Amino acid sequence: MQLPYYIDLLGTLVFAVSGALAASDKNMYKDIFGVTFTSFVTAVGGGTLRDMILGVRPTWVVDGNYLIAITIGVVFAITFKYYIIKYRRTFFLFDTIGIALYTVVGVQKSLEHGVAPLAAIIMGMFSAVMGGVIRDTLINEIPLIFKKEIYATACLSGAAIFVGLKLLGVDDNINSFVSVFVIILIRVISVKYQLTLPKSR
Amino acid sequence: MQLPYYIDLLGTLVFAVSGALAASDKNMYKDIFGVTFTSFVTAVGGGTLRDMILGVRPTWVVDGNYLIAITIGVVFAITFKYYIIKYRRTFFLFDTIGIALYTVVGVQKSLEHGVAPLAAIIMGMFSAVMGGVIRDTLINEIPLIFKKEIYATACLSGAAIFVGLKLLGVDDNINSFVSVFVIILIRVISVKYQLTLPKSR
Amino acid sequence: MQLPYYIDLLGTLVFAVSGALAASDKNMYKDIFGVTFTSFVTAVGGGTLRDMILGVRPTWVVDGNYLIAITIGVVFAITFKYYIIKYRRTFFLFDTIGIALYTVVGVQKSLEHGVAPLAAIIMGMFSAVMGGVIRDTLINEIPLIFKKEIYATACLSGAAIFVGLKLLGVDDNINSFVSVFVIILIRVISVKYQLTLPKSR
Repeated sequence: MQLPYYIDLLGTLVFAVSGALAASDKNMYKDIFGVTFTSFVTAVGGGTLRDMILGVRPTWVVDGNYLIAITIGVVFAITFKYYIIKYRRTFFLFDTIGIALYTVVGVQKSLEHGVAPLAAIIMGMFSAVMGGVIRDTLINEIPLIFKKEIYATACLSGAAIFVGLKLLGVDDNINSFVSVFVIILIRVISVKYQLTLPKSR
Repeated sequence: MQLPYYIDLLGTLVFAVSGALAASDKNMYKDIFGVTFTSFVTAVGGGTLRDMILGVRPTWVVDGNYLIAITIGVVFAITFKYYIIKYRRTFFLFDTIGIALYTVVGVQKSLEHGVAPLAAIIMGMFSAVMGGVIRDTLINEIPLIFKKEIYATACLSGAAIFVGLKLLGVDDNINSFVSVFVIILIRVISVKYQLTLPKSR
Repeated sequence: MQLPYYIDLLGTLVFAVSGALAASDKNMYKDIFGVTFTSFVTAVGGGTLRDMILGVRPTWVVDGNYLIAITIGVVFAITFKYYIIKYRRTFFLFDTIGIALYTVVGVQKSLEHGVAPLAAIIMGMFSAVMGGVIRDTLINEIPLIFKKEIYATACLSGAAIFVGLKLLGVDDNINSFVSVFVIILIRVISVKYQLTLPKSR
């Protein structure tokens, strides 16, 4: 699956909304710059880190449309903040679809650039979650991925399935669909039943 | 404007002084290593991040003079700490000139490397402020750019003006001069009148 | 000295153990994902940052064995946690050998890629300590290098000696041996006699 351009832009916008909401929850970052900066980092951080490791130029650097998508996301988040919070279930679904798509796109891009299969799994997860990790680090919080226990793990699972099926010769379109579906499924089930990972002693 | 080499070095030195002072204010980082490390990160962090995104090698990696400038900055900051604090207005002006120059240099370098105009504005701001952001994150503080409200915003404004005038065909030298001047002006006025940005609800 | 492949893998494993222990000490990161993620960042963070600055692809991205080494390190750390804590002196020695090897490998790799001698010293230190710094930043702690006072400084000293002897034309194998030895010596002596660096006023 070549992620259609407009879906990629939509994913960026969704992440931007999520970042803007996270910032506007905290007094410290309530001004327009703080909200926008945090939103931007959330939306492009993961992909940028992946691309810096791969040695390719991040998409947002060469295509101004990504920054426009982020701007729309920020304006949307500030304007409709109370509605978004009211419909947080819908928003949760958006975020989940977002990380699922980003993961699979990240794995594919990594494999295309000659990354080892095991490493590609990590790069896929990075694409989806590191934007949020960088955001949380900047605003001096424990990164959410350490608290939402089955979040990054869902991405890792989906990424592993993608790499596995790819090695088995499964068609990329079918593979992408299955992997994205698995990530969404794991995430939804883990939230619904409040599943957690086993602890180290 | 090709930023003259010695001005770039002077900017690095000024940022190094600023970083060393920030570190030596906190007991935890008072030893020579902590002060030097923090100083180094402040001085080269923004430009290094920009260059990693652009895919070019940071200047300090290939030219040892930048590290010498930083060393001089650290020694200067430790030796004359009380004088610098006494003349903080002068120092504020230095820092302001520093971020203005770094912003414009960052925008130019980005445009030369084929970055989209909108993205170049962000890259310019990054060059100027991300060193301080990385420093603050390392010493476990809320990044100053979220507190000094019209700081990064001044850089963004100047960068936007540079890109705008560039697209209008204005000569680079005049353009640089105007953009640098605007950044300094916005910063000075916002501090003098304690202006802040509007808040999200 | 071309660091033998299996020693490099062993170093990665040792750093992974160290990262896993750091995470499992904190309740927040006790689940398997948190421990593994923290372990991974500790093990590859420094080298990855160095390679991103150099513009080369990190080894773990192209060679899956590094991730296997990290996995073994995590399983080992979780399984034998109490024994490792009991024999912390042995573990301390491992960590010290680890940072010494990483520093010298980092300096060499940097010099081979045309980095200026002064900058190569910093890149060597980065290779050894930045994994821990990134780990500490992510888990919202003051980076250990600011508290363990003669840690990064030992790496800097060894790196400086390597660069100095290299410029004097000393054979790489002898040079590596001497530099690694000096780092270990400084670190061991500073811990034994609780030496600290001078403070800024």
